[in-house]
Amino acid sequence: MSNSVSTFDRVAIMGVGLIGGSIALAAKQRGVAGCIMGIGRDAARLAAAQKLGVIDEFSTSPEACSTVELVVVCTPVNRIADDVAQALQNTPETVLVTDAGSVKASIVADVERQSSQSARYVPAHPLAGSHSTGFEHANADLYNGRLCVLTPTPANTASGIARVRALWEGLGMRIQVLAPDAHDRILALTSHLPHVGAAALADLVTPDQLEFAATGFRDTTRVAAGDPELWTAIVERNSAQLTAGIDALIDSLTAFREALINNQTENVRSFFQRAQRLRSQFHDADSQPHQSHE
Amino acid sequence: MSNSVSTFDRVAIMGVGLIGGSIALAAKQRGVAGCIMGIGRDAARLAAAQKLGVIDEFSTSPEACSTVELVVVCTPVNRIADDVAQALQNTPETVLVTDAGSVKASIVADVERQSSQSARYVPAHPLAGSHSTGFEHANADLYNGRLCVLTPTPANTASGIARVRALWEGLGMRIQVLAPDAHDRILALTSHLPHVGAAALADLVTPDQLEFAATGFRDTTRVAAGDPELWTAIVERNSAQLTAGIDALIDSLTAFREALINNQTENVRSFFQRAQRLRSQFHDADSQPHQSHE
Repeated sequence: MSNSVSTFDRVAIMGVGLIGGSIALAAKQRGVAGCIMGIGRDAARLAAAQKLGVIDEFSTSPEACSTVELVVVCTPVNRIADDVAQALQNTPETVLVTDAGSVKASIVADVERQSSQSARYVPAHPLAGSHSTGFEHANADLYNGRLCVLTPTPANTASGIARVRALWEGLGMRIQVLAPDAHDRILALTSHLPHVGAAALADLVTPDQLEFAATGFRDTTRVAAGDPELWTAIVERNSAQLTAGIDALIDSLTAFREALINNQTENVRSFFQRAQRLRSQFHDADSQPHQSHE
Repeated sequence: MSNSVSTFDRVAIMGVGLIGGSIALAAKQRGVAGCIMGIGRDAARLAAAQKLGVIDEFSTSPEACSTVELVVVCTPVNRIADDVAQALQNTPETVLVTDAGSVKASIVADVERQSSQSARYVPAHPLAGSHSTGFEHANADLYNGRLCVLTPTPANTASGIARVRALWEGLGMRIQVLAPDAHDRILALTSHLPHVGAAALADLVTPDQLEFAATGFRDTTRVAAGDPELWTAIVERNSAQLTAGIDALIDSLTAFREALINNQTENVRSFFQRAQRLRSQFHDADSQPHQSHE
Protein backbone atom coordinates (compact mmCIF):
# COMPACT_ATOMS: atom_id res chain seq x y z
CA MET A 1 0.00 0.00 0.00
CA SER A 2 2.99 2.32 0.29
CA ASN A 3 3.71 4.96 -2.28
CA SER A 4 7.25 6.21 -2.52
CA VAL A 5 6.20 9.68 -3.77
CA SER A 6 3.65 10.32 -1.00
CA THR A 7 4.36 12.94 1.67
CA PHE A 8 3.22 10.35 4.22
CA ASP A 9 3.31 6.61 3.82
CA ARG A 10 0.45 5.85 6.23
CA VAL A 11 -2.04 8.30 7.77
CA ALA A 12 -4.81 7.54 10.25
CA ILE A 13 -8.07 9.52 10.18
CA MET A 14 -9.84 9.33 13.53
CA GLY A 15 -13.53 10.05 12.90
CA VAL A 16 -14.50 9.38 9.29
CA GLY A 17 -17.38 11.79 8.70
CA LEU A 18 -17.66 14.61 6.20
CA ILE A 19 -14.45 16.29 7.39
CA GLY A 20 -12.36 13.16 7.93
CA GLY A 21 -13.66 11.64 4.71
CA SER A 22 -12.88 14.77 2.70
CA ILE A 23 -9.34 14.89 4.12
CA ALA A 24 -8.92 11.19 3.27
CA LEU A 25 -10.09 11.64 -0.33
CA ALA A 26 -7.95 14.75 -0.89
CA ALA A 27 -4.88 13.14 0.68
CA LYS A 28 -5.15 10.12 -1.61
CA GLN A 29 -5.92 12.08 -4.78
CA ARG A 30 -3.10 14.53 -4.20
CA GLY A 31 -0.50 11.94 -3.27
CA VAL A 32 -0.24 13.24 0.30
CA ALA A 33 -0.81 9.81 1.81
CA GLY A 34 0.00 6.39 0.45
CA CYS A 35 -2.48 4.57 2.65
CA ILE A 36 -5.37 5.92 4.77
CA MET A 37 -6.56 4.04 7.82
CA GLY A 38 -9.95 5.03 9.22
CA ILE A 39 -10.43 4.75 12.97
CA GLY A 40 -13.83 4.99 14.62
CA ARG A 41 -16.41 3.37 16.83
CA ASP A 42 -18.76 1.89 14.26
CA ALA A 43 -17.25 -0.98 12.25
CA ALA A 44 -20.21 -1.11 9.83
CA ARG A 45 -19.83 2.57 8.97
CA LEU A 46 -16.07 2.20 8.55
CA ALA A 47 -16.57 -0.84 6.29
CA ALA A 48 -18.99 1.22 4.17
CA ALA A 49 -16.41 4.04 3.93
CA GLN A 50 -13.80 1.52 2.84
CA LYS A 51 -16.16 0.02 0.24
CA LEU A 52 -16.81 3.54 -1.10
CA GLY A 53 -13.04 4.04 -1.46
CA VAL A 54 -12.85 6.85 1.12
CA ILE A 55 -10.38 4.89 3.28
CA ASP A 56 -8.06 1.99 2.49
CA GLU A 57 -8.37 0.08 5.75
CA PHE A 58 -9.95 0.59 9.15
CA SER A 59 -9.97 -0.34 12.80
CA THR A 60 -12.24 0.28 15.79
CA SER A 61 -9.20 0.12 18.05
CA PRO A 62 -7.25 3.34 18.68
CA GLU A 63 -4.19 1.14 19.19
CA ALA A 64 -4.13 0.55 15.44
CA CYS A 65 -2.67 4.09 15.18
CA SER A 66 0.69 2.65 16.15
CA THR A 67 1.45 1.73 12.52
CA VAL A 68 1.00 5.17 10.95
CA GLU A 69 3.17 8.30 10.67
CA LEU A 70 0.42 10.86 11.28
CA VAL A 71 -2.98 10.82 13.01
CA VAL A 72 -5.61 13.41 12.02
CA VAL A 73 -8.33 13.69 14.68
CA CYS A 74 -11.62 14.71 13.00
CA THR A 75 -14.11 13.95 15.78
CA PRO A 76 -16.59 16.53 17.21
CA VAL A 77 -14.97 19.39 19.09
CA ASN A 78 -15.98 18.13 22.55
CA ARG A 79 -14.24 14.78 21.90
CA ILE A 80 -11.05 16.01 20.22
CA ALA A 81 -8.90 16.44 23.35
CA ASP A 82 -9.66 12.91 24.57
CA ASP A 83 -9.04 11.46 21.13
CA VAL A 84 -5.77 13.33 20.66
CA ALA A 85 -4.56 12.15 24.08
CA GLN A 86 -5.53 8.58 23.16
CA ALA A 87 -3.73 8.81 19.82
CA LEU A 88 -0.59 10.10 21.58
CA GLN A 89 -0.76 7.26 24.08
CA ASN A 90 -1.08 4.62 21.35
CA THR A 91 1.70 5.79 19.07
CA PRO A 92 5.50 5.75 19.22
CA GLU A 93 7.42 8.98 19.66
CA THR A 94 7.94 9.50 15.94
CA VAL A 95 4.20 9.84 15.22
CA LEU A 96 2.58 13.26 14.87
CA VAL A 97 -1.03 14.11 15.71
CA THR A 98 -3.11 17.00 14.37
CA ASP A 99 -6.82 17.83 14.44
CA ALA A 100 -9.54 19.79 12.64
CA GLY A 101 -11.29 21.48 15.58
CA SER A 102 -12.93 24.93 15.37
CA VAL A 103 -11.60 25.88 18.84
CA LYS A 104 -8.01 25.56 19.93
CA ALA A 105 -6.89 26.90 23.34
CA SER A 106 -9.11 24.70 25.52
CA ILE A 107 -8.26 21.60 23.47
CA VAL A 108 -4.54 22.34 23.76
CA ALA A 109 -4.87 22.83 27.52
CA ASP A 110 -6.82 19.58 27.93
CA VAL A 111 -4.33 17.60 25.87
CA GLU A 112 -1.42 19.02 27.88
CA ARG A 113 -3.21 18.06 31.10
CA GLN A 114 -4.00 14.53 29.89
CA SER A 115 -0.78 13.60 28.10
CA SER A 116 2.96 13.87 28.66
CA GLN A 117 3.35 13.50 24.89
CA SER A 118 1.59 16.73 23.90
CA ALA A 119 4.70 18.02 22.08
CA ARG A 120 3.74 15.67 19.23
CA TYR A 121 0.29 17.31 18.85
CA VAL A 122 0.30 20.20 16.36
CA PRO A 123 -3.19 21.81 16.53
CA ALA A 124 -4.93 22.88 13.32
CA HIS A 125 -8.22 24.38 12.16
CA PRO A 126 -9.07 23.98 8.48
CA LEU A 127 -11.75 26.61 7.66
CA ALA A 128 -14.29 24.89 5.47
CA GLY A 129 -17.72 23.51 6.00
CA SER A 130 -20.61 21.99 4.21
CA HIS A 131 -24.32 21.63 4.70
CA SER A 132 -23.95 17.86 4.55
CA THR A 133 -22.66 15.35 7.08
CA GLY A 134 -21.24 11.83 6.75
CA PHE A 135 -18.46 10.39 4.60
CA GLU A 136 -21.01 9.77 1.83
CA HIS A 137 -20.82 13.53 1.14
CA ALA A 138 -17.04 13.72 1.46
CA ASN A 139 -15.48 15.89 -1.21
CA ALA A 140 -11.83 15.87 -2.23
CA ASP A 141 -12.04 19.59 -3.06
CA LEU A 142 -13.63 20.76 0.19
CA TYR A 143 -10.36 22.23 1.44
CA ASN A 144 -8.82 23.29 -1.83
CA GLY A 145 -7.91 26.99 -1.77
CA ARG A 146 -9.22 27.42 1.79
CA LEU A 147 -7.36 28.61 4.87
CA CYS A 148 -5.90 26.31 7.50
CA VAL A 149 -4.86 27.92 10.78
CA LEU A 150 -2.04 26.17 12.60
CA THR A 151 -1.76 26.99 16.31
CA PRO A 152 1.52 25.39 17.37
CA THR A 153 2.53 25.35 21.03
CA PRO A 154 5.97 26.12 22.50
CA ALA A 155 6.45 22.36 23.00
CA ASN A 156 6.13 21.59 19.27
CA THR A 157 9.34 21.05 17.32
CA ALA A 158 10.06 22.95 14.11
CA SER A 159 10.23 19.69 12.17
CA GLY A 160 6.90 18.50 13.63
CA ILE A 161 5.21 21.75 12.66
CA ALA A 162 6.70 21.52 9.17
CA ARG A 163 5.43 17.96 8.70
CA VAL A 164 1.89 18.83 9.82
CA ARG A 165 1.99 21.94 7.65
CA ALA A 166 2.90 19.69 4.71
CA LEU A 167 -0.28 17.67 5.29
CA TRP A 168 -2.60 20.67 5.15
CA GLU A 169 -0.71 22.37 2.32
CA GLY A 170 -0.83 19.06 0.48
CA LEU A 171 -4.65 19.26 0.57
CA GLY A 172 -4.46 22.56 -1.31
CA MET A 173 -4.82 24.84 1.72
CA ARG A 174 -3.25 28.21 2.49
CA ILE A 175 -1.62 28.30 5.92
CA GLN A 176 -1.67 30.92 8.67
CA VAL A 177 0.00 30.48 12.03
CA LEU A 178 -1.57 31.91 15.20
CA ALA A 179 -1.26 31.26 18.91
CA PRO A 180 -4.22 29.18 20.17
CA ASP A 181 -5.61 32.14 22.18
CA ALA A 182 -5.33 34.51 19.22
CA HIS A 183 -7.10 31.97 17.02
CA ASP A 184 -9.97 31.67 19.48
CA ARG A 185 -10.28 35.43 19.93
CA ILE A 186 -10.45 36.06 16.18
CA LEU A 187 -12.71 33.09 15.37
CA ALA A 188 -15.06 34.20 18.16
CA LEU A 189 -15.66 37.35 16.09
CA THR A 190 -15.54 35.90 12.58
CA SER A 191 -17.44 32.66 13.20
CA HIS A 192 -18.82 31.90 16.66
CA LEU A 193 -20.41 35.31 17.36
CA PRO A 194 -22.04 35.51 13.89
CA HIS A 195 -23.53 32.10 14.61
CA VAL A 196 -24.92 33.24 17.96
CA GLY A 197 -26.22 36.45 16.39
CA ALA A 198 -27.91 34.55 13.57
CA ALA A 199 -29.54 32.18 16.06
CA ALA A 200 -30.72 35.07 18.27
CA LEU A 201 -32.25 36.84 15.25
CA ALA A 202 -34.01 33.66 14.11
CA ASP A 203 -35.27 33.01 17.64
CA LEU A 204 -37.05 36.41 17.74
CA VAL A 205 -39.29 35.53 14.79
CA THR A 206 -42.43 33.42 15.15
CA PRO A 207 -43.49 30.83 12.55
CA ASP A 208 -46.47 32.93 11.43
CA GLN A 209 -44.11 35.84 10.68
CA LEU A 210 -41.87 33.81 8.36
CA GLU A 211 -44.10 34.57 5.39
CA PHE A 212 -42.87 38.16 5.72
CA ALA A 213 -39.18 37.19 5.62
CA ALA A 214 -37.21 37.42 2.40
CA THR A 215 -33.62 37.30 1.19
CA GLY A 216 -32.18 39.42 4.03
CA PHE A 217 -33.55 37.09 6.68
CA ARG A 218 -32.58 34.07 4.61
CA ASP A 219 -28.91 35.04 4.42
CA THR A 220 -28.50 36.55 7.87
CA THR A 221 -29.98 33.54 9.71
CA ARG A 222 -28.77 30.75 7.40
CA VAL A 223 -26.18 29.33 9.80
CA ALA A 224 -28.85 29.04 12.51
CA ALA A 225 -29.93 25.88 10.68
CA GLY A 226 -26.66 24.28 11.88
CA ASP A 227 -26.50 21.34 14.28
CA PRO A 228 -27.31 22.54 17.86
CA GLU A 229 -25.10 19.83 19.44
CA LEU A 230 -22.11 20.85 17.36
CA TRP A 231 -22.55 24.53 18.14
CA THR A 232 -23.22 23.98 21.83
CA ALA A 233 -19.85 22.20 22.02
CA ILE A 234 -18.07 24.92 20.06
CA VAL A 235 -19.39 27.86 22.12
CA GLU A 236 -18.76 26.06 25.41
CA ARG A 237 -15.19 25.37 24.31
CA ASN A 238 -14.67 29.07 23.53
CA SER A 239 -16.87 30.65 26.18
CA ALA A 240 -14.48 33.32 27.48
CA GLN A 241 -13.63 34.77 24.06
CA LEU A 242 -17.22 34.46 22.90
CA THR A 243 -18.54 36.19 26.00
CA ALA A 244 -16.24 39.13 25.27
CA GLY A 245 -17.62 39.18 21.73
CA ILE A 246 -21.22 39.14 22.96
CA ASP A 247 -20.44 42.07 25.25
CA ALA A 248 -19.01 44.01 22.30
CA LEU A 249 -22.06 43.18 20.19
CA ILE A 250 -24.44 44.33 22.93
CA ASP A 251 -22.43 47.56 23.30
CA SER A 252 -22.66 48.18 19.54
CA LEU A 253 -26.41 47.53 19.46
CA THR A 254 -26.91 49.77 22.50
CA ALA A 255 -25.01 52.64 20.87
CA PHE A 256 -26.97 52.22 17.63
CA ARG A 257 -30.23 52.18 19.60
CA GLU A 258 -29.30 55.45 21.33
CA ALA A 259 -28.42 57.09 18.03
CA LEU A 260 -31.72 55.93 16.55
CA ILE A 261 -34.02 57.12 19.33
CA ASN A 262 -32.15 60.43 19.60
CA ASN A 263 -32.38 61.07 15.85
CA GLN A 264 -28.60 61.21 15.52
CA THR A 265 -28.70 60.56 11.78
CA GLU A 266 -24.95 60.99 11.34
CA ASN A 267 -24.24 58.24 13.89
CA VAL A 268 -26.82 55.92 12.34
CA ARG A 269 -25.35 56.49 8.89
CA SER A 270 -21.74 56.04 10.01
CA PHE A 271 -22.67 52.72 11.67
CA PHE A 272 -23.97 51.41 8.33
CA GLN A 273 -21.05 53.00 6.47
CA ARG A 274 -18.45 51.32 8.69
CA ALA A 275 -20.16 47.96 8.28
CA GLN A 276 -20.41 48.38 4.51
CA ARG A 277 -16.75 49.36 4.25
CA LEU A 278 -15.60 46.33 6.24
CA ARG A 279 -17.93 43.94 4.43
CA SER A 280 -16.78 45.21 1.03
CA GLN A 281 -13.23 44.11 1.94
CA PHE A 282 -14.35 40.52 2.46
CA HIS A 283 -13.82 38.26 -0.52
CA ASP A 284 -14.56 34.61 -0.65
CA ALA A 285 -14.16 32.10 -3.45
CA ASP A 286 -17.90 31.31 -3.36
CA SER A 287 -19.05 34.84 -2.63
CA GLN A 288 -21.27 36.96 -4.81
CA PRO A 289 -21.87 40.60 -3.94
CA HIS A 290 -25.44 40.92 -2.75
CA GLN A 291 -27.63 43.68 -1.48
CA SER A 292 -31.26 43.72 -0.69
CA HIS A 293 -33.81 46.30 0.25
CA GLU A 294 -36.82 44.09 0.67
CA MET B 1 -50.80 53.18 -26.86
CA SER B 2 -53.90 51.80 -25.12
CA ASN B 3 -54.57 48.09 -24.89
CA SER B 4 -58.18 47.03 -24.40
CA VAL B 5 -57.20 43.86 -22.46
CA SER B 6 -54.90 45.63 -19.96
CA THR B 7 -55.94 45.91 -16.31
CA PHE B 8 -54.90 49.57 -16.50
CA ASP B 9 -54.80 51.71 -19.60
CA ARG B 10 -52.13 54.12 -18.37
CA VAL B 11 -49.86 53.77 -15.32
CA ALA B 12 -47.26 56.25 -14.04
CA ILE B 13 -44.09 55.01 -12.34
CA MET B 14 -42.60 57.73 -10.15
CA GLY B 15 -38.90 56.91 -9.75
CA VAL B 16 -37.60 54.69 -12.54
CA GLY B 17 -34.79 52.74 -10.88
CA LEU B 18 -34.42 49.02 -10.34
CA ILE B 19 -37.75 48.71 -8.56
CA GLY B 20 -39.78 51.08 -10.72
CA GLY B 21 -38.16 49.70 -13.86
CA SER B 22 -38.91 46.10 -12.88
CA ILE B 23 -42.54 46.98 -12.15
CA ALA B 24 -42.77 48.73 -15.52
CA LEU B 25 -41.33 45.77 -17.44
CA ALA B 26 -43.53 43.23 -15.64
CA ALA B 27 -46.66 45.36 -16.06
CA LYS B 28 -46.10 45.61 -19.82
CA GLN B 29 -45.14 41.96 -20.35
CA ARG B 30 -48.08 40.68 -18.33
CA GLY B 31 -50.65 43.00 -19.87
CA VAL B 32 -51.26 44.83 -16.60
CA ALA B 33 -50.67 48.24 -18.16
CA GLY B 34 -51.23 49.43 -21.70
CA CYS B 35 -48.87 52.38 -21.43
CA ILE B 36 -46.22 53.19 -18.80
CA MET B 37 -45.21 56.77 -18.13
CA GLY B 38 -41.97 57.30 -16.21
CA ILE B 39 -41.79 60.33 -13.93
CA GLY B 40 -38.54 61.55 -12.41
CA ARG B 41 -36.07 64.36 -11.98
CA ASP B 42 -33.48 63.48 -14.59
CA ALA B 43 -34.71 63.80 -18.20
CA ALA B 44 -31.59 62.16 -19.63
CA ARG B 45 -32.02 59.09 -17.43
CA LEU B 46 -35.72 58.88 -18.29
CA ALA B 47 -34.94 59.18 -22.01
CA ALA B 48 -32.44 56.33 -21.64
CA ALA B 49 -35.09 54.21 -19.90
CA GLN B 50 -37.51 54.94 -22.72
CA LYS B 51 -34.89 54.03 -25.32
CA LEU B 52 -34.27 50.74 -23.52
CA GLY B 53 -38.01 49.99 -23.66
CA VAL B 54 -38.50 50.10 -19.88
CA ILE B 55 -41.06 52.93 -20.15
CA ASP B 56 -43.21 54.15 -23.05
CA GLU B 57 -43.10 57.88 -22.32
CA PHE B 58 -41.80 60.16 -19.60
CA SER B 59 -42.05 63.51 -17.91
CA THR B 60 -40.06 65.44 -15.34
CA SER B 61 -43.25 67.16 -14.23
CA PRO B 62 -45.37 65.46 -11.54
CA GLU B 63 -48.37 67.18 -13.12
CA ALA B 64 -48.10 64.71 -16.00
CA CYS B 65 -49.66 62.17 -13.63
CA SER B 66 -53.03 63.71 -14.35
CA THR B 67 -53.48 61.56 -17.47
CA VAL B 68 -53.02 58.11 -15.85
CA GLU B 69 -55.28 55.79 -13.83
CA LEU B 70 -52.69 54.66 -11.30
CA VAL B 71 -49.44 56.11 -9.93
CA VAL B 72 -46.83 53.77 -8.41
CA VAL B 73 -44.34 55.68 -6.25
CA CYS B 74 -40.97 53.87 -6.32
CA THR B 75 -38.69 56.56 -4.88
CA PRO B 76 -36.44 56.04 -1.82
CA VAL B 77 -38.29 55.52 1.45
CA ASN B 78 -37.53 58.99 2.83
CA ARG B 79 -39.08 60.65 -0.26
CA ILE B 80 -42.17 58.45 -0.68
CA ALA B 81 -44.56 60.45 1.52
CA ASP B 82 -43.79 63.73 -0.28
CA ASP B 83 -44.07 62.06 -3.68
CA VAL B 84 -47.35 60.35 -2.83
CA ALA B 85 -48.78 63.66 -1.60
CA GLN B 86 -47.62 65.34 -4.80
CA ALA B 87 -49.16 62.60 -6.94
CA LEU B 88 -52.47 62.96 -5.08
CA GLN B 89 -52.38 66.72 -5.59
CA ASN B 90 -51.75 66.41 -9.33
CA THR B 91 -54.39 63.82 -10.14
CA PRO B 92 -58.17 63.81 -10.39
CA GLU B 93 -60.26 61.98 -7.81
CA THR B 94 -60.49 58.81 -9.88
CA VAL B 95 -56.74 58.18 -9.81
CA LEU B 96 -55.22 55.73 -7.31
CA VAL B 97 -51.72 55.94 -5.84
CA THR B 98 -49.65 53.11 -4.37
CA ASP B 99 -46.00 52.72 -3.41
CA ALA B 100 -43.21 50.19 -2.89
CA GLY B 101 -41.78 51.38 0.44
CA SER B 102 -40.24 49.02 3.03
CA VAL B 103 -41.86 50.96 5.91
CA LYS B 104 -45.54 51.85 6.09
CA ALA B 105 -46.97 53.53 9.23
CA SER B 106 -44.86 56.69 9.18
CA ILE B 107 -45.41 57.14 5.44
CA VAL B 108 -49.17 56.75 5.88
CA ALA B 109 -49.14 59.28 8.73
CA ASP B 110 -47.11 61.79 6.71
CA VAL B 111 -49.38 61.44 3.66
CA GLU B 112 -52.47 61.93 5.81
CA ARG B 113 -50.91 65.04 7.33
CA GLN B 114 -49.89 66.48 3.93
CA SER B 115 -52.93 65.61 1.82
CA SER B 116 -56.70 65.72 2.09
CA GLN B 117 -56.77 63.11 -0.69
CA SER B 118 -55.09 60.30 1.25
CA ALA B 119 -58.07 57.98 0.79
CA ARG B 120 -56.81 57.40 -2.75
CA TYR B 121 -53.41 56.18 -1.50
CA VAL B 122 -53.31 52.39 -0.94
CA PRO B 123 -49.92 51.58 0.67
CA ALA B 124 -47.97 48.53 -0.48
CA HIS B 125 -44.65 46.79 0.15
CA PRO B 126 -43.50 44.30 -2.47
CA LEU B 127 -40.86 42.07 -0.81
CA ALA B 128 -38.10 41.61 -3.33
CA GLY B 129 -34.65 43.03 -3.73
CA SER B 130 -31.60 42.77 -5.84
CA HIS B 131 -27.92 43.54 -5.50
CA SER B 132 -28.15 45.88 -8.47
CA THR B 133 -29.53 49.38 -8.83
CA GLY B 134 -30.79 51.38 -11.79
CA PHE B 135 -33.34 50.59 -14.49
CA GLU B 136 -30.57 49.01 -16.58
CA HIS B 137 -30.83 46.02 -14.21
CA ALA B 138 -34.63 46.01 -14.16
CA ASN B 139 -36.04 42.50 -14.38
CA ALA B 140 -39.60 41.62 -15.36
CA ASP B 141 -39.47 38.55 -13.07
CA LEU B 142 -38.18 40.32 -9.94
CA TYR B 143 -41.59 40.18 -8.28
CA ASN B 144 -42.91 36.94 -9.74
CA GLY B 145 -43.95 34.54 -6.97
CA ARG B 146 -42.95 36.98 -4.22
CA LEU B 147 -45.08 38.47 -1.49
CA CYS B 148 -46.67 41.92 -1.61
CA VAL B 149 -48.02 43.29 1.65
CA LEU B 150 -50.93 45.72 1.30
CA THR B 151 -51.52 47.97 4.31
CA PRO B 152 -54.82 49.69 3.55
CA THR B 153 -56.10 52.44 5.81
CA PRO B 154 -59.68 52.95 7.07
CA ALA B 155 -60.05 55.77 4.53
CA ASN B 156 -59.41 53.46 1.54
CA THR B 157 -62.44 52.22 -0.40
CA ALA B 158 -62.97 48.54 -1.12
CA SER B 159 -62.86 49.21 -4.85
CA GLY B 160 -59.64 51.21 -4.53
CA ILE B 161 -57.98 48.41 -2.56
CA ALA B 162 -59.18 45.86 -5.14
CA ARG B 163 -57.74 47.89 -8.03
CA VAL B 164 -54.33 48.29 -6.36
CA ARG B 165 -54.37 44.61 -5.43
CA ALA B 166 -54.98 43.83 -9.11
CA LEU B 167 -51.77 45.69 -10.01
CA TRP B 168 -49.56 43.70 -7.65
CA GLU B 169 -51.28 40.39 -8.37
CA GLY B 170 -50.89 41.17 -12.05
CA LEU B 171 -47.10 41.24 -11.55
CA GLY B 172 -47.28 37.65 -10.30
CA MET B 173 -47.22 38.46 -6.57
CA ARG B 174 -48.95 36.78 -3.65
CA ILE B 175 -50.87 39.26 -1.47
CA GLN B 176 -51.13 39.61 2.30
CA VAL B 177 -53.05 42.39 4.02
CA LEU B 178 -51.80 43.90 7.29
CA ALA B 179 -52.40 47.11 9.20
CA PRO B 180 -49.46 49.54 8.69
CA ASP B 181 -48.35 49.16 12.33
CA ALA B 182 -48.47 45.36 12.16
CA HIS B 183 -46.44 45.44 8.95
CA ASP B 184 -43.76 47.60 10.56
CA ARG B 185 -43.63 45.49 13.73
CA ILE B 186 -43.19 42.25 11.75
CA LEU B 187 -40.76 43.67 9.18
CA ALA B 188 -38.69 45.13 12.02
CA LEU B 189 -38.03 41.53 13.10
CA THR B 190 -37.82 39.82 9.71
CA SER B 191 -35.86 42.48 7.81
CA HIS B 192 -34.73 45.64 9.61
CA LEU B 193 -33.32 44.01 12.77
CA PRO B 194 -31.44 41.31 10.80
CA HIS B 195 -29.90 44.14 8.80
CA VAL B 196 -28.81 45.99 11.95
CA GLY B 197 -27.51 42.74 13.46
CA ALA B 198 -25.53 41.92 10.33
CA ALA B 199 -24.02 45.41 10.30
CA ALA B 200 -23.12 45.22 14.00
CA LEU B 201 -21.43 41.83 13.49
CA ALA B 202 -19.47 43.13 10.50
CA ASP B 203 -18.47 46.27 12.42
CA LEU B 204 -16.82 44.17 15.19
CA VAL B 205 -14.34 42.61 12.76
CA THR B 206 -11.15 44.38 11.67
CA PRO B 207 -9.80 44.14 8.11
CA ASP B 208 -6.80 42.02 9.19
CA GLN B 209 -9.20 39.47 10.72
CA LEU B 210 -11.17 38.98 7.50
CA GLU B 211 -8.75 36.32 6.32
CA PHE B 212 -10.13 34.17 9.14
CA ALA B 213 -13.76 34.60 8.05
CA ALA B 214 -15.46 31.95 5.96
CA THR B 215 -18.96 30.98 4.80
CA GLY B 216 -20.69 31.68 8.13
CA PHE B 217 -19.45 35.27 8.20
CA ARG B 218 -20.14 35.63 4.49
CA ASP B 219 -23.82 34.72 4.81
CA THR B 220 -24.55 36.33 8.17
CA THR B 221 -23.13 39.73 7.21
CA ARG B 222 -24.04 39.77 3.51
CA VAL B 223 -26.76 42.42 3.80
CA ALA B 224 -24.31 44.75 5.56
CA ALA B 225 -22.96 45.49 2.07
CA GLY B 226 -26.25 47.33 1.40
CA ASP B 227 -26.50 51.06 0.71
CA PRO B 228 -26.02 53.00 4.00
CA GLU B 229 -28.25 55.88 2.82
CA LEU B 230 -31.11 53.54 1.99
CA TRP B 231 -30.86 51.73 5.31
CA THR B 232 -30.47 54.91 7.34
CA ALA B 233 -33.77 56.09 5.86
CA ILE B 234 -35.50 52.75 6.50
CA VAL B 235 -34.47 52.43 10.15
CA GLU B 236 -35.29 56.07 10.90
CA ARG B 237 -38.73 55.57 9.37
CA ASN B 238 -39.33 52.53 11.61
CA SER B 239 -37.40 53.58 14.71
CA ALA B 240 -39.98 52.71 17.38
CA GLN B 241 -40.60 49.16 16.19
CA LEU B 242 -36.93 48.61 15.47
CA THR B 243 -35.92 49.87 18.92
CA ALA B 244 -38.27 47.31 20.46
CA GLY B 245 -36.62 44.66 18.30
CA ILE B 246 -33.12 45.75 19.36
CA ASP B 247 -34.18 45.52 23.00
CA ALA B 248 -35.46 41.98 22.44
CA LEU B 249 -32.21 41.03 20.68
CA ILE B 250 -30.11 42.44 23.53
CA ASP B 251 -32.26 40.52 26.04
CA SER B 252 -31.75 37.31 24.09
CA LEU B 253 -27.98 37.80 23.84
CA THR B 254 -27.81 38.64 27.55
CA ALA B 255 -29.69 35.45 28.49
CA PHE B 256 -27.44 33.37 26.23
CA ARG B 257 -24.35 34.98 27.74
CA GLU B 258 -25.53 34.13 31.26
CA ALA B 259 -26.21 30.52 30.27
CA LEU B 260 -22.76 30.29 28.70
CA ILE B 261 -20.74 31.70 31.59
CA ASN B 262 -22.74 29.66 34.12
CA ASN B 263 -22.22 26.41 32.17
CA GLN B 264 -25.98 25.92 31.76
CA THR B 265 -25.54 23.55 28.84
CA GLU B 266 -29.27 22.78 28.58
CA ASN B 267 -30.07 26.48 28.10
CA VAL B 268 -27.30 26.93 25.55
CA ARG B 269 -28.49 23.90 23.61
CA SER B 270 -32.17 24.91 23.73
CA PHE B 271 -31.27 28.38 22.36
CA PHE B 272 -29.65 26.76 19.31
CA GLN B 273 -32.47 24.19 19.05
CA ARG B 274 -35.19 26.87 19.04
CA ALA B 275 -33.32 28.84 16.37
CA GLN B 276 -32.77 25.73 14.24
CA ARG B 277 -36.45 24.75 14.53
CA LEU B 278 -37.64 28.21 13.44
CA ARG B 279 -35.08 28.49 10.64
CA SER B 280 -36.00 25.05 9.29
CA GLN B 281 -39.56 26.33 8.78
CA PHE B 282 -38.37 29.12 6.48
CA HIS B 283 -38.57 28.34 2.80
CA ASP B 284 -37.69 30.67 0.01
CA ALA B 285 -37.76 30.19 -3.72
CA ASP B 286 -34.03 30.90 -3.97
CA SER B 287 -33.07 29.18 -0.75
CA GLN B 288 -30.75 26.23 -0.41
CA PRO B 289 -30.37 24.53 2.96
CA HIS B 290 -26.93 25.36 4.27
CA GLN B 291 -24.96 24.60 7.37
CA SER B 292 -21.41 25.31 8.21
CA HIS B 293 -19.04 24.39 10.97
CA GLU B 294 -15.97 26.24 9.82
